[in-house]
Amino acid sequence: MSDATTPLVAIIMGSKNDWDTMKRAAGVLDDFGVPNEARVLSAHRTPGELTAYLNEKEAQGVEVFIGGAGGAAHLPGVIAAQTVRPVLGVPIESQSLKGLDSLLSIVQMPSGIPVGTLAIGAAGASNAALMAVAILANSRPDLREKIVAYRKERADKILSESLE
Amino acid sequence: MSDATTPLVAIIMGSKNDWDTMKRAAGVLDDFGVPNEARVLSAHRTPGELTAYLNEKEAQGVEVFIGGAGGAAHLPGVIAAQTVRPVLGVPIESQSLKGLDSLLSIVQMPSGIPVGTLAIGAAGASNAALMAVAILANSRPDLREKIVAYRKERADKILSESLE
Amino acid sequence: MSDATTPLVAIIMGSKNDWDTMKRAAGVLDDFGVPNEARVLSAHRTPGELTAYLNEKEAQGVEVFIGGAGGAAHLPGVIAAQTVRPVLGVPIESQSLKGLDSLLSIVQMPSGIPVGTLAIGAAGASNAALMAVAILANSRPDLREKIVAYRKERADKILSESLE
Amino acid sequence: MSDATTPLVAIIMGSKNDWDTMKRAAGVLDDFGVPNEARVLSAHRTPGELTAYLNEKEAQGVEVFIGGAGGAAHLPGVIAAQTVRPVLGVPIESQSLKGLDSLLSIVQMPSGIPVGTLAIGAAGASNAALMAVAILANSRPDLREKIVAYRKERADKILSESLE
Amino acid sequence: MSDATTPLVAIIMGSKNDWDTMKRAAGVLDDFGVPNEARVLSAHRTPGELTAYLNEKEAQGVEVFIGGAGGAAHLPGVIAAQTVRPVLGVPIESQSLKGLDSLLSIVQMPSGIPVGTLAIGAAGASNAALMAVAILANSRPDLREKIVAYRKERADKILSESLE
Amino acid sequence: MSDATTPLVAIIMGSKNDWDTMKRAAGVLDDFGVPNEARVLSAHRTPGELTAYLNEKEAQGVEVFIGGAGGAAHLPGVIAAQTVRPVLGVPIESQSLKGLDSLLSIVQMPSGIPVGTLAIGAAGASNAALMAVAILANSRPDLREKIVAYRKERADKILSESLE
Amino acid sequence: MSDATTPLVAIIMGSKNDWDTMKRAAGVLDDFGVPNEARVLSAHRTPGELTAYLNEKEAQGVEVFIGGAGGAAHLPGVIAAQTVRPVLGVPIESQSLKGLDSLLSIVQMPSGIPVGTLAIGAAGASNAALMAVAILANSRPDLREKIVAYRKERADKILSESLE
Amino acid sequence: MSDATTPLVAIIMGSKNDWDTMKRAAGVLDDFGVPNEARVLSAHRTPGELTAYLNEKEAQGVEVFIGGAGGAAHLPGVIAAQTVRPVLGVPIESQSLKGLDSLLSIVQMPSGIPVGTLAIGAAGASNAALMAVAILANSRPDLREKIVAYRKERADKILSESLE
Repeated sequence: MSDATTPLVAIIMGSKNDWDTMKRAAGVLDDFGVPNEARVLSAHRTPGELTAYLNEKEAQGVEVFIGGAGGAAHLPGVIAAQTVRPVLGVPIESQSLKGLDSLLSIVQMPSGIPVGTLAIGAAGASNAALMAVAILANSRPDLREKIVAYRKERADKILSESLE
Repeated sequence: MSDATTPLVAIIMGSKNDWDTMKRAAGVLDDFGVPNEARVLSAHRTPGELTAYLNEKEAQGVEVFIGGAGGAAHLPGVIAAQTVRPVLGVPIESQSLKGLDSLLSIVQMPSGIPVGTLAIGAAGASNAALMAVAILANSRPDLREKIVAYRKERADKILSESLE
Repeated sequence: MSDATTPLVAIIMGSKNDWDTMKRAAGVLDDFGVPNEARVLSAHRTPGELTAYLNEKEAQGVEVFIGGAGGAAHLPGVIAAQTVRPVLGVPIESQSLKGLDSLLSIVQMPSGIPVGTLAIGAAGASNAALMAVAILANSRPDLREKIVAYRKERADKILSESLE
Repeated sequence: MSDATTPLVAIIMGSKNDWDTMKRAAGVLDDFGVPNEARVLSAHRTPGELTAYLNEKEAQGVEVFIGGAGGAAHLPGVIAAQTVRPVLGVPIESQSLKGLDSLLSIVQMPSGIPVGTLAIGAAGASNAALMAVAILANSRPDLREKIVAYRKERADKILSESLE
Repeated sequence: MSDATTPLVAIIMGSKNDWDTMKRAAGVLDDFGVPNEARVLSAHRTPGELTAYLNEKEAQGVEVFIGGAGGAAHLPGVIAAQTVRPVLGVPIESQSLKGLDSLLSIVQMPSGIPVGTLAIGAAGASNAALMAVAILANSRPDLREKIVAYRKERADKILSESLE
Repeated sequence: MSDATTPLVAIIMGSKNDWDTMKRAAGVLDDFGVPNEARVLSAHRTPGELTAYLNEKEAQGVEVFIGGAGGAAHLPGVIAAQTVRPVLGVPIESQSLKGLDSLLSIVQMPSGIPVGTLAIGAAGASNAALMAVAILANSRPDLREKIVAYRKERADKILSESLE
Repeated sequence: MSDATTPLVAIIMGSKNDWDTMKRAAGVLDDFGVPNEARVLSAHRTPGELTAYLNEKEAQGVEVFIGGAGGAAHLPGVIAAQTVRPVLGVPIESQSLKGLDSLLSIVQMPSGIPVGTLAIGAAGASNAALMAVAILANSRPDLREKIVAYRKERADKILSESLE
Repeated sequence: MSDATTPLVAIIMGSKNDWDTMKRAAGVLDDFGVPNEARVLSAHRTPGELTAYLNEKEAQGVEVFIGGAGGAAHLPGVIAAQTVRPVLGVPIESQSLKGLDSLLSIVQMPSGIPVGTLAIGAAGASNAALMAVAILANSRPDLREKIVAYRKERADKILSESLE
């Protein structure tokens, strides 16, 4: 979790157990130098505090919210219902159904309240951060260049790998 | 929709389209003489009004809430997060995934906030009403006798049916 | 398993192996001071004893039955067919299909015989107990206050957690 | 439905609506000259009558029971729990989940109580009858020859078909 | 694997790896004193030898064939295409799809060639043997009494179990 | 399809048949006054033209790309591989698997190349447009106010609906 | 169905009903001028005739076999077990499970006997033919040029389409 | 990975992690003496290098391309879009959805661009190689004899196995 004072991205998860997945989002944002903060707040168990937090962060200037949740993963949708900022959702792999439940609960939002959904688990968490960076980069050209560099670095790594 | 002044059961659905399914719940409650009312309120599109409605109905003495929703069906869980009364969930059949998404979004609730989930679609809606009647009947023996009679009538109907 | 003499909730499971999951239901009921008992009885292997047990417990004043079962999980439905008290179902995670079979076998009950279904596995077991408490609380206001306190305690725990 | 006085095969279904599928089983049995009868009896709505019927038919000499059911399709398993005669199960196509729920509810029986499960829908119904004939044919060589003839006839039909 | 000279039941599996599951079928048959034999023969890799084996065993008087297979589990269906004796199928749990592929490949047989399908994995293997015993018992009343005794023993075991 | 000369959002679909779904995205963007254009370009059948189009549009200042595709829906991922602008994906309902294939093919992107995925079908298409508006609104406060107004209008519509 | 005397591709389907899908394969082969023939032969109902046909066609010089089947779709695998020529499989959309059963039954072949599987339904049938053409084209450069031209024509058609 | 100078088969995978599965394809090709090479190239992360590699290999005379990928497995389809040589796809088992996502993303290709898809995981990788050998063998009779010998060897191994 980044310790930035004025975050641009807020990462929210329904349970402390989700941090093992969601810390990858924070890590990617840190790598890009994007101020962010992470918080455990549950759509079901702390709905009032979630609302208060969303209002506070929107007022502070958060531009993207990332919600990670598993099972009947309502958190990203409940965030999206309370902010007009872009909301990204990360389905956490669940115990029995392996995140298929999380995925459907996040992505199948009704018309009117969108959640941009990423892949189940760790890949989804880091991609949520990259998507947030791409959104922020629309008005921050330096960030866009960092994405280009990041992609080139990843591509070079793949190209340099040997199968032996 | 019943027109009772002091409802014991409140039926909430996320979209007017869900009424085609949920009216079966109202119909069963009416058949049992249980005061009930139905309302369209969305967890995502009218979250504030939903909260206000839940508070008002809980204060009025509603003993069971029934939520029907499709797709990323957050409504029953969001109701359950805001009341300590029993909450029943009805997964509405969705366009593409036929209610499997609705079912998983309703039933896979995290530990702490239960939703008693019924079958997808019309059978689930009428069963939600029967479950509500059974819950109410715990302190209303006359209702329990009505359930016994209802079941006997249904059994007799099955037994009297001919396959020719 | 609680050792109460006049149980309000009876927990039934199809196999001793299911106790590892279902003991969470008993634990929650114990925490709330709700008299309960647990028993292994199979819808398929001991149908006669199951019927006898249900009749005995209904006569004793059990107000909620909880059935836990895996695979072709018929137990909750078979219980519901033989009592007019509210029946809750807990899908136990199965070996191959991870509880998807258990869930569908419990939740997709036909119109007329409802089973209020909870999540697959441990979360479902503890939530079945919480749902039972909420049902009992309809005529026991002190229990309702315990639910409020329980939820506040859980919320406080989430809010006090640090991600570091 | 065949009108035989001493049936060798009993076809049971949970709802009159299932007859549209299950009549194919009766038709195949009729074609093979196997005495059979069909009855609507529900594992959930008429459990007592179901038990009485099974006892009566087993005493009369029924050698194979066929159960057809949809959704949380408990009927074949509940039959199998109450007879030691072979039980075959036909998953009826359900409204929302298209019989996947019916199939899993029938086939995933726990160790100890087998149900020989056929395909979802009409093909399963006619195959349940053919399977019953094959079981009966173990001690009735003339039936076995009828199966051979039946298969030859079907094969000839396929081979004579033209794609134009 | 039983060492009977004139088997009544033949157990066939597509790979030696399947024996870990299918030996439960052989064990149950041995417990019931039913002569049986097990063989590894693949519908895809040894189709000719499979045909020869089926012909030989049918001539020897095998009354039930049990096929166990995983993945695109064609073995039970290919057996059923070549014998008019009853054929039972056991879906073996597969590596990736956990036997859902095996189940569908076995149970969804077209009209005309039935396979009585049991549960995925070990429960299915022992139930296939119990189903075979029930089929044999139609003309062997002593076996039927053994099933009654077996079920009573299993029920007594469940009833004697303590949850402490 | 909007006729804007300098589009901010480009909508791409793999087949003309997808327009029936994707035109809802264009309609929402038109309603918000967001310049957009739609084009049929296939990741598989016209890969070169797709690349050329993406390069041209990125140079023109398109800030969000929306890709709609069905089946093995590679289009959104292939777009995302070739631009650093935010890419949204809409799974089109497919003939046999009803869009589950489309959804998984779009959302399960590997780490490094994110696609923000919306719901299957029409709801997903209109939500992709709303998500695009939210992204654009991060640097266009007037658009943010339009979202607030749009949501209020939708909420008022729900609240004014009668179930009679 | 083409009327070629020495076919290079043989299309086999398990039921005449499958022709509605599989005729698309024949049509594409005809368009490419590839001699082909189609036949209804069932892995289950006419296994002997299937073997005879495969031997005859392999001797005649057929270079690719295409098998189309639905449900427990064993046909392509059974073909592959009896020829060393490349075998392609087309999952036919089934009544209840919409071809998911067909797909898994065809694609999940065990190590040793491959079936190159195409998409469910009509797209799979025409792609099986295109795949067969690509295989044949490895030693027939003129066919390869036809594929290039075919693709160009299809691309041009997409590029010329207007959304108005 | 084979070290052949003029490969007939090129194996491409999206991530070095996939080599654990795909090396089985290389191993089978080596066993058959088929020159092959393997390379890590991503449809998403190195699209340009992938195109260059495909062009180079097609010019060198590669006759079959094998693509292995997991999750939103676009690689085989993206290869197929850029070559007219036969393309085979191997779904790699993914973390959460166990390769069901990989399978659907590979096999459900739209009409026009076929990918011959094999089973999920290791069996699919070795079968992709066998399928490639069968394709090459169409114009290389010695390879066809090797397949015959390989199959005989595998069959003999099965027939010689003992279950004790």
